[in-house]
Amino acid sequence: MADPLRLAIAGLGTVGTGVIRLLQENGAMLAERAGRPLEVVAVSARDRARDRGVDLSPFDWEDDMTAMAARADVDVVVELVGGSDGPALTLARNAIAGGKHFVTANKAMIAHHGLELAGAAEGSGSALKFEAAVAGGIPVVKGLREGAAANRIDTVYGVLNGTANYILSTMEATGADFTTTLGEAQRLGYAEADPTFDIEGIDAAHKLAILASIAFGSRLDFDAVACEGISRVRAADIRQADTLGYVVRLVASAEIDMSDGQPALLQQVRPCLVPKSHPLAHVTGATNAVVAQGNFSGRLLFQGAGAGDGPTASAVVADLIDIARGDAGAPFSVPSSGLEELPIADAGHHTGQTYLRFSVTDRPGVLAEITAAMRDADVSIESLIQQGRANNGGEVLVAMVTHDGPQSNVAQAVELLAGSDSLTAPPLVMQIIED
Amino acid sequence: MADPLRLAIAGLGTVGTGVIRLLQENGAMLAERAGRPLEVVAVSARDRARDRGVDLSPFDWEDDMTAMAARADVDVVVELVGGSDGPALTLARNAIAGGKHFVTANKAMIAHHGLELAGAAEGSGSALKFEAAVAGGIPVVKGLREGAAANRIDTVYGVLNGTANYILSTMEATGADFTTTLGEAQRLGYAEADPTFDIEGIDAAHKLAILASIAFGSRLDFDAVACEGISRVRAADIRQADTLGYVVRLVASAEIDMSDGQPALLQQVRPCLVPKSHPLAHVTGATNAVVAQGNFSGRLLFQGAGAGDGPTASAVVADLIDIARGDAGAPFSVPSSGLEELPIADAGHHTGQTYLRFSVTDRPGVLAEITAAMRDADVSIESLIQQGRANNGGEVLVAMVTHDGPQSNVAQAVELLAGSDSLTAPPLVMQIIED
Repeated sequence: MADPLRLAIAGLGTVGTGVIRLLQENGAMLAERAGRPLEVVAVSARDRARDRGVDLSPFDWEDDMTAMAARADVDVVVELVGGSDGPALTLARNAIAGGKHFVTANKAMIAHHGLELAGAAEGSGSALKFEAAVAGGIPVVKGLREGAAANRIDTVYGVLNGTANYILSTMEATGADFTTTLGEAQRLGYAEADPTFDIEGIDAAHKLAILASIAFGSRLDFDAVACEGISRVRAADIRQADTLGYVVRLVASAEIDMSDGQPALLQQVRPCLVPKSHPLAHVTGATNAVVAQGNFSGRLLFQGAGAGDGPTASAVVADLIDIARGDAGAPFSVPSSGLEELPIADAGHHTGQTYLRFSVTDRPGVLAEITAAMRDADVSIESLIQQGRANNGGEVLVAMVTHDGPQSNVAQAVELLAGSDSLTAPPLVMQIIED
Repeated sequence: MADPLRLAIAGLGTVGTGVIRLLQENGAMLAERAGRPLEVVAVSARDRARDRGVDLSPFDWEDDMTAMAARADVDVVVELVGGSDGPALTLARNAIAGGKHFVTANKAMIAHHGLELAGAAEGSGSALKFEAAVAGGIPVVKGLREGAAANRIDTVYGVLNGTANYILSTMEATGADFTTTLGEAQRLGYAEADPTFDIEGIDAAHKLAILASIAFGSRLDFDAVACEGISRVRAADIRQADTLGYVVRLVASAEIDMSDGQPALLQQVRPCLVPKSHPLAHVTGATNAVVAQGNFSGRLLFQGAGAGDGPTASAVVADLIDIARGDAGAPFSVPSSGLEELPIADAGHHTGQTYLRFSVTDRPGVLAEITAAMRDADVSIESLIQQGRANNGGEVLVAMVTHDGPQSNVAQAVELLAGSDSLTAPPLVMQIIED
């Protein structure tokens, strides 16, 4: 058998420990599949003393993880530290500059610095791989970069954040409101003490920007992702959606908009209504799923565990096997210099059905005011539900679903109502995903 | 850019024509992704005169497709002729012996001769690739061979035949019986005039044997697949299943059985009951889906179009891109000489819940006879439904679901009832897939 592929692992949290456990448990099988043994040479983490439940004694310990990039006895640096900048980025730059292959689960770093790192890796002949950065154990980076490589992809979307999906699908199952459900999720360890990245869609946006670049061959552009979280989704919205045949999901979607005659990139993360017959409607709990629409393949769906030490380790080691097998090709499917710089699309161009929910004071004329704004903005209403009076000070909810039409019209209708003292809160607008 | 990857395409039916159309439509993008142009040099088919809607004039025409294996100006032979033996196999052997890469959509040939061809390809340094042979456009061969490569996989299963799934999901939607639905499917072109391969599970068995070999690293063993078709599933079974919270699917499954202390291979294709909450329950029409359970990744699901010229062409060209990029590694994840020869597992070892449906004469004591047989075989009954008298000569259906238990006990109960003149037809036994 060929020489071992020698690894240095930076970061020994749950994922780093999971990788070591995987390499130990499945080692013989991995060597056979990879054509050579995968051998950990050195590890690094903050606290050497901590008991991680795996035997670290066979490995060199590096107090300074940056030193691993300089070791002559290392072929691949595996970064599982996290953080978009700081030590992780320094390690990545140094490892790649030193001609080492680099594998990471760090979605924030790839979303912000992926282009720079890919360019450097292409220059030094290193592999840069990040399967674990998107959707945990689901091989969707590979699925788009290689499996669907024959296709022009027009749209890629999915459920990319397990915490947000756990909260929404729990609200759906229990009828509880957002705050209660978030608190419960925090208590159970499904949501972090500071849940901002998950519930505001930033984590999903990191992953989306990476997927979009691979799917479209466009330059990675995290800053262009329009992001809206789930904290404004009420139990009542989920009930209304259910009545209308939908569920609510935090959907991350990227699509190519040709309305201006040339390609522009629309990247959005926001709660959407998903028809119950759509595969994403059945994605519950911490599960992730990605849909890609190829011009020859048709709709492809990849689904699995979006996080967790086992699934993430599975993705990290799949990258290592690829490297051991001599995997070639650019990190983002085409060389980074060839990635197209696409302008940001006008979100108003997007057409489809929309759900709007207004919180209004319970008095005559409010419904007339709302429907007049819709008419003036040329928004055609398919169905409208006005709930009976609630207990909280005369607030009433009006929910409606529009016919197909451009988002710009919906935005205009909302704009027209912006000054109205009939509204007790800004309306919640959710796009409806096509089946 | 590097030299083109030069292709010879044998077979210009819908898939072959689809591949040419894809290469023409997406050509520039493909060259960028593959790092070199994909260039068709020669084509071959039975009828040169037929109008296929694509321009074949740029390509050399070979009347004898075997001649393509000998052309010095060809790097890859693409076989889209079909048939497990005959000209397709001759072409495969010659192409590989001549050091050419070989790409095929031919599931029957790979199921029967994949080991021989893989051994030859490993010897001659050729790539042998067959993504399109399993589940059409879904990149599941790659998903298992590479994406899930870090995992020990204990079970892989799925809906692998679009025709059978179309029939079952149509029966579910319309309440019509099997014969009517098959006839309608044939009229619509969803089922062939001779539907045997599809409805008897043989096509699914071809695909399953290939997936099992990749997932487990075991020697491909098509002859060991136990196969049962869907022709005995009645509209009444689908109604009963629905009442009990299930749908009926033709499930192809492979698993490692450790009951005898060493691994044995269980491969089955047969109609099963699938809980409505399981992802496979939402796979309707001609869609295919594959589930793999990895020891680190957890449950992975791949879903998409299982057939059709576009999806199949997408898979064929993905293989070509891999080859152009310098893809390496054994066709079945480990070198064919290293694939384990696993004994066939005793299907009776498999434990789980089972659905049984008896067609019985409507007279006293029949239910007692059936339940006594269950008791004597140590099969515990969870629920039992006896339908009211039917119109067809006093035949009554008795359907039941067992508690968890070994299949051997169920088989014994059926055996005990074999001679009974209370039964008007052999019972239908369907395993229940775990959620």
